[in-house]
Amino acid sequence: MQMPVDQQTYRSAMARLGAAVNVITTADGTMRDGFTASAVCSVTDTPPTLLVCINRSSRSRPRFVQGSPVCVNVLASDQRGISDAFSGKLDPEHKFAFGCWDILQTGAPVLCGAAVSFDCRLASEIDVGTHSVLFCEVEATRMGAPGKSLMYLDRTYHELPYQIDVI
Amino acid sequence: MQMPVDQQTYRSAMARLGAAVNVITTADGTMRDGFTASAVCSVTDTPPTLLVCINRSSRSRPRFVQGSPVCVNVLASDQRGISDAFSGKLDPEHKFAFGCWDILQTGAPVLCGAAVSFDCRLASEIDVGTHSVLFCEVEATRMGAPGKSLMYLDRTYHELPYQIDVI
Repeated sequence: MQMPVDQQTYRSAMARLGAAVNVITTADGTMRDGFTASAVCSVTDTPPTLLVCINRSSRSRPRFVQGSPVCVNVLASDQRGISDAFSGKLDPEHKFAFGCWDILQTGAPVLCGAAVSFDCRLASEIDVGTHSVLFCEVEATRMGAPGKSLMYLDRTYHELPYQIDVI
Repeated sequence: MQMPVDQQTYRSAMARLGAAVNVITTADGTMRDGFTASAVCSVTDTPPTLLVCINRSSRSRPRFVQGSPVCVNVLASDQRGISDAFSGKLDPEHKFAFGCWDILQTGAPVLCGAAVSFDCRLASEIDVGTHSVLFCEVEATRMGAPGKSLMYLDRTYHELPYQIDVI
């Protein structure tokens, strides 16, 4: 049995996997919460489902349970401050002082001006090591106007353009 | 119960989630195979584990079983041809005519000149809708020289720079 690579080597290598920057939100009648994540990808379009990885030790983790509303907001390039706010240690409501927020279908907070938002329900989850993988079924989407997407690669923010409004 | 969004709307929205372009490979004594994937992300560093989503109807799918060697090769910007080859319908060995290939630890094909390669074993999997999510434990990594990463957003290739060689 081969030993896995050490954590530092893995993290340095993983810095080479570029990704979009997303703010993942939830809400119920009494609270809102959210966190920044780059470990987000599409799983299947039948039914439309994406996944989000979250650290099990995150203070936000207990907010996300089966059936929770979950919105995956893909950040635009002018939303670095929102990325930073939701990756820091602010109290949940202080995070939401950054940006303006709507709701769509599920009640999860939907970020104004995001590149795109996926309004979901948490359908299932699985724990792997230190993290949980949340499988989220998409109930509604909202596309922003053409612009630029916030990307993260090599421990640095970047931006890439998108044009298409509707296919 | 809310109906999910239709597939076309979901796909158009998902085109706004930028991602790195990766070629996922495997091999045993008699064959090599691989496919292009953008649905790849880190799960945990304890043990170092990433995930890859693959369509269950893909011809390559049966090659990936528990314990299989799996290499996740994150493409550099001059490797669009390799992305196209591994996303097309070529026979597996014809795909490998594109690029040059090494092995590291597990025996899975490792692409020369990739931004980074993660040499893994398939540790577990879960089916979600039309796709399988493959959880891959990383046994070795190889970083390329500083350069540019191939990215995909808005149904178009892009590139982003990376500098760091070793932290």
